[in-house]
Amino acid sequence: MSTTRVPVRLGERSYDVLIGAGLIAEAGRLIKERLPGANAAIVTDENVAALYLPALKSALEAAAIRIAEIVVPAGEGTKSFAQLQSVVEAVLEARLERGDAIVALGGGVVGDLAGFAAAVTRRGMHLVQVPTNMLAQVDSSVGGKTGINAPQGKNLVGAFHQPALVVADTATLDTLPQREFAAGYAEVVKYGLIDDAAFFAWLEANRDEVFGGGAARTHAIAESVKAKARVVAADEREAGERALLNLGHTFGHALEAAYGFDTARLVHGEAVAVGMVLAHDFSAAEELAPAADSDRVRAHLEAVGLPVSIEAIPGTRPNADTLMHHIAQDKKVSGGRLTFILTRGIGQAFIANDVPADKVRAFLERQAA
Amino acid sequence: MSTTRVPVRLGERSYDVLIGAGLIAEAGRLIKERLPGANAAIVTDENVAALYLPALKSALEAAAIRIAEIVVPAGEGTKSFAQLQSVVEAVLEARLERGDAIVALGGGVVGDLAGFAAAVTRRGMHLVQVPTNMLAQVDSSVGGKTGINAPQGKNLVGAFHQPALVVADTATLDTLPQREFAAGYAEVVKYGLIDDAAFFAWLEANRDEVFGGGAARTHAIAESVKAKARVVAADEREAGERALLNLGHTFGHALEAAYGFDTARLVHGEAVAVGMVLAHDFSAAEELAPAADSDRVRAHLEAVGLPVSIEAIPGTRPNADTLMHHIAQDKKVSGGRLTFILTRGIGQAFIANDVPADKVRAFLERQAA
Repeated sequence: MSTTRVPVRLGERSYDVLIGAGLIAEAGRLIKERLPGANAAIVTDENVAALYLPALKSALEAAAIRIAEIVVPAGEGTKSFAQLQSVVEAVLEARLERGDAIVALGGGVVGDLAGFAAAVTRRGMHLVQVPTNMLAQVDSSVGGKTGINAPQGKNLVGAFHQPALVVADTATLDTLPQREFAAGYAEVVKYGLIDDAAFFAWLEANRDEVFGGGAARTHAIAESVKAKARVVAADEREAGERALLNLGHTFGHALEAAYGFDTARLVHGEAVAVGMVLAHDFSAAEELAPAADSDRVRAHLEAVGLPVSIEAIPGTRPNADTLMHHIAQDKKVSGGRLTFILTRGIGQAFIANDVPADKVRAFLERQAA
Repeated sequence: MSTTRVPVRLGERSYDVLIGAGLIAEAGRLIKERLPGANAAIVTDENVAALYLPALKSALEAAAIRIAEIVVPAGEGTKSFAQLQSVVEAVLEARLERGDAIVALGGGVVGDLAGFAAAVTRRGMHLVQVPTNMLAQVDSSVGGKTGINAPQGKNLVGAFHQPALVVADTATLDTLPQREFAAGYAEVVKYGLIDDAAFFAWLEANRDEVFGGGAARTHAIAESVKAKARVVAADEREAGERALLNLGHTFGHALEAAYGFDTARLVHGEAVAVGMVLAHDFSAAEELAPAADSDRVRAHLEAVGLPVSIEAIPGTRPNADTLMHHIAQDKKVSGGRLTFILTRGIGQAFIANDVPADKVRAFLERQAA
C-alpha cells in the first residue's frame, strides 16, 4: 500500500495529510504516533457509521485507544447549534479531557461539526479528520475551518481549529455515488481555476481516469491538498489570499440558501460548480476575462455531470432579489461593499473587494431571464 | 480624571486594560482609537442595562459608532448554549461583520458569554470588555477565557479569545452591593496568595480603604490586573503556570456545582474564598504549608464577610461523594490523576499534578463531619 504524505506547514500547528487506499485500517497506529496516550470520541453520521465505523473502531482498539461513539443524523441540517450542543455534551459525558481527540469520520458536515466541537469543548481538544468523500478529502478536512450554519447563512458560526492529522482513505471513494464524487470533483477543478492552468488542462485530459479511480484519482487528490495547504500556510485565518479558495462560493452559497439547503436539488459541490461558471461569466461580461475560458470551464464541468447554470437546478428558480439578499448576508462582505473572487482567465483568479452590487444584480437578472 | 493603563503583552494580540472612574463616558473615543471604523453590538444583562446602557450608548454614538443592543437575562443560567445561539443570531441579524466589535457590558457572566459569541461569530469578531463589577474588573475581563457552562460543569465549553480593549470604570463599583464587592475581592486576595506575600500583607493592612473606594481600591484593582497580565503573557492557553490562577477554583467549582449554581446561596467569588481556605487547609494537612498561614487566610477573608468553610454556606451541605464527582468532572483533570493548586504558604502556590483522590476524599469527609 502506498501512502502519499502532504504536510501542512503552520509552525507549531503543522500536520500531515495522509492519502492512500485502506488507511482507515492504519488509523489507530497513525493517531497513536502523533497523539500518544490520547483517547478518542468518534463522531460520524448514520450513513457513514454503517460503512466505516466498525473498521475504524477496530483500528483504534487495536492501538489501545479508548473510544466513545457519537452518531449524528446525516445531512446539512446537522450543522446546527442543537447538534453542536449534543456532540459537546456527549464528549463531556464520556469524560474525555483536553489531551484527548475528537475523530471526525465522514464528509464535510461531520468534519465541520465535529471540528467545531473539538475547538470549543474544554476550550480546545485535539482533532483528527478521517474524510470519507471526495469533497472532504480534497477540501473541507484540510485547513482548519470548522463551523455550523445560522438562519442568516452557511458557516456563519465557527472557529479556526487545525487538525492534528488527516487520514484520507481513498478506498472510501470506490463506493461513492457518481453524483457525490462529481460534487467533490468541482473543488478539484477549483484549484486549477485559481492559479494552476496546467492542472486544469491535466484534468481536461484525464477526467475519465480520475473518475475511474487508481493513480490518477490519487494524483488529483494530492495536488488538490497541496494547493490548499499552500494557501492555508500563507494565510491561515483568511486575512487575504485564502479568500481565493472562495472562488464560486459567494454565488454558490447564495444558491444553496435560496434552495433551502435542499440537497435533493443541490449539494455544495454542485453549487460551487454553478458558482464558478457564474464567476467566470461575470468576469467575461465585465471584460476582465476571455469568454472562451468561460466556455472551457462550462464544458469541462458539464462533461462530468455537474450543473453549470441556475436553470439546470431542479425546483423553482430564485429571482435576483433573493440571491442578492443571500449574497449581502454572506460573511465575505466588508464595509458594505461586495467582495467576489473574479478571474482574468483560467488559473488567474483574484480578489475583487469593491464589486458594485448593481452590476451583480443586473447580471443575475439576465441569468434568471 | 486619572486613568491607569495596564498593558497585556501577547504579541499581535496585545491590548490595554484601562482603569479609572467615569471611563464609560470615554468608551466611544477609546474604542474608535483602537478599532477605527468598527460598528458594535453591546451585549449586557437586564440589571446592568438599567444602570449603564444609556451612558455607554451615548458615548458610542458620540463617536459615530453604529450600535445594536442585545440584552440577556441576568444570572449564571445565561451561560448556556441557548443564550449563546440567541446572541450570535442577534449579532448576525444586525449585519455586523468580521471587523466589527462585540462590547460586553456587565459582570463575568456577560463577559464570558459575549466573549464566546465574539470568538465564534463569523469565526471571530473583535471584543471589547466593559466590566461593571469587582470580579470582572480584577479577573474575568482580562486574559481571553470565554465560555458557557455544561450540565457536566462550569466553563466546559468555550474559547480563548483576547479582547481588543478592556475599559474598567471604577465608578460602577460605588453602587455595588457589599456582598458582590466582597466576592470580587476574593480574587484580589488570590493574587497575593499565589506569588505575592507582600501584596497579601498590604491587603491585610488596607482592606477597609479598599472597600471604601478611592485610591486604595484602584491600586488593588491595578495590582490584580498586572498580576493576571503577567501570568497570561507567560502562558496564554494554560499549558502550564496559568493554572496557578485556579487556586481555590477546583474546590470552588465543585461547591458551585453541588449547590446547583444557586447564587442566592453561593456566588463564584464566595466559592473561591471557601476553595482557597480548603486549598490552604489541605496543604497544611499534607504538611506542605504552615497551619498559621491557613489561619491568616481564613481570618482575612472572614473579616471582609466572605464564607470560609462549607458549613458557612446556606443550604443542605453536600457530602464528599458529591464533591468528588464534581471535582473529577472538572477540566483540570489529566490522565485520570487529580490536579490541584496547592501551597507551601502565603505567596507560594504551586501546581500539584498527582494529588491522590483518596486523600482529597478523606479531607472532604473531615470537612463534612
